[in-house]
Amino acid sequence: MPAVGRTCWAIAEGHIPGQSHGPEPQMTSHETACILNASSEVAHVTITLYFADRDPVGPYRIEVPAQRTRHVRFNDLDDPEPVPRDTDFASVIKSSVPIVVQHSRLDSRQSELALLSTVAFPVD
Amino acid sequence: MPAVGRTCWAIAEGHIPGQSHGPEPQMTSHETACILNASSEVAHVTITLYFADRDPVGPYRIEVPAQRTRHVRFNDLDDPEPVPRDTDFASVIKSSVPIVVQHSRLDSRQSELALLSTVAFPVD
Amino acid sequence: MPAVGRTCWAIAEGHIPGQSHGPEPQMTSHETACILNASSEVAHVTITLYFADRDPVGPYRIEVPAQRTRHVRFNDLDDPEPVPRDTDFASVIKSSVPIVVQHSRLDSRQSELALLSTVAFPVD
Amino acid sequence: MPAVGRTCWAIAEGHIPGQSHGPEPQMTSHETACILNASSEVAHVTITLYFADRDPVGPYRIEVPAQRTRHVRFNDLDDPEPVPRDTDFASVIKSSVPIVVQHSRLDSRQSELALLSTVAFPVD
Repeated sequence: MPAVGRTCWAIAEGHIPGQSHGPEPQMTSHETACILNASSEVAHVTITLYFADRDPVGPYRIEVPAQRTRHVRFNDLDDPEPVPRDTDFASVIKSSVPIVVQHSRLDSRQSELALLSTVAFPVD
Repeated sequence: MPAVGRTCWAIAEGHIPGQSHGPEPQMTSHETACILNASSEVAHVTITLYFADRDPVGPYRIEVPAQRTRHVRFNDLDDPEPVPRDTDFASVIKSSVPIVVQHSRLDSRQSELALLSTVAFPVD
Repeated sequence: MPAVGRTCWAIAEGHIPGQSHGPEPQMTSHETACILNASSEVAHVTITLYFADRDPVGPYRIEVPAQRTRHVRFNDLDDPEPVPRDTDFASVIKSSVPIVVQHSRLDSRQSELALLSTVAFPVD
Repeated sequence: MPAVGRTCWAIAEGHIPGQSHGPEPQMTSHETACILNASSEVAHVTITLYFADRDPVGPYRIEVPAQRTRHVRFNDLDDPEPVPRDTDFASVIKSSVPIVVQHSRLDSRQSELALLSTVAFPVD
């Protein structure tokens, strides 16, 4: 099998709605980077966040074990700092081994949820 | 015409909602891999599922006849085992001939449905 | 400017919901191939549809003038035959000049609409 | 780090719904080009709009500072002219430095919102 994925990805869209309807955590408005590491080595992943009006924040550090997937909610990132709600951002995701990244959002600001998803942009 | 597609694809997002509203099967919450085989040969397709906390499961085996499309619901996969609901997963899809794969979800946990779709990531 | 797009695209997902809510035509459930022809020549476009259990149908012929966009509803295709509702299909789209193709759906089977969109897969 | 992105992108889908429900501006129906400039130089960006039945309009000029993201609502573009509502369009986006572009829409014509998103098509 060829290497599955790339080592650098970008997501230009990012926005965690500040409100939610429905039971937590499944119906909490959230922004997700779904990461697949199909390789035989652990992936050491860093996420850097970009904003409209201040310097980038990061790196946020995540590990994805070999042959595992991890669906990372931006809502849960808190080191070096939490991700602000109701704020536009973008992200660059780097990995020590090839991974695949897909971006999804669940928006439950209104009583009925909405979804979006796209494969992230492979940078390298 | 050039070969339509690739022989290895990845979908990093995967999640079958455990609840649904509305008439079955069209309104059942589902996760789909839409496969197009525009070639003149049958496509022997294997799907391997990746999880957050256990080893990959598969291969699930599917055939798509020449010049046909098949919209495979992950909900319906049951050999070697059913796909768990309310569980994050990812998938790698391989084929004996070039195919095109698009990922879609219908989420009807609430009374009004939500949709997402993206072309999968072409690995090779 | 480099040529904008490719001359062959594939959309593996396709399904026109058979029901709709709300005023026509804007809220009619529909499946769309949005085509951008940024070139200086008319684009002669052909669409071939693939199904699960019968031979491909087509070509459907469309023209997109130079420096124009055309958002083609599959609902409106009728030559050589209408596109069946509530039926899975896929499509291959070829053009005499480079174009860009994006796939969208509006699903109004329930009282609140759902949307999906993805850039189609560039074959060549 | 390799250059993050490309200098020319296309979005074949474009449509600003003419109606909205809910509080402005967050619930106003809108069409967005999310732009990430991860480079160390300001990005001078131009957007050209293509229509079904008239000549292209533009360029609209936007700056994205180094290491910043800007989520541009097509609703807000007004020079050389506002973007018409309820009208199909497409866009080509060029930049002086590599950027990443993702296309999103929030449609609140009905009381419950719908979302779509896809990475734009990288032209070069």
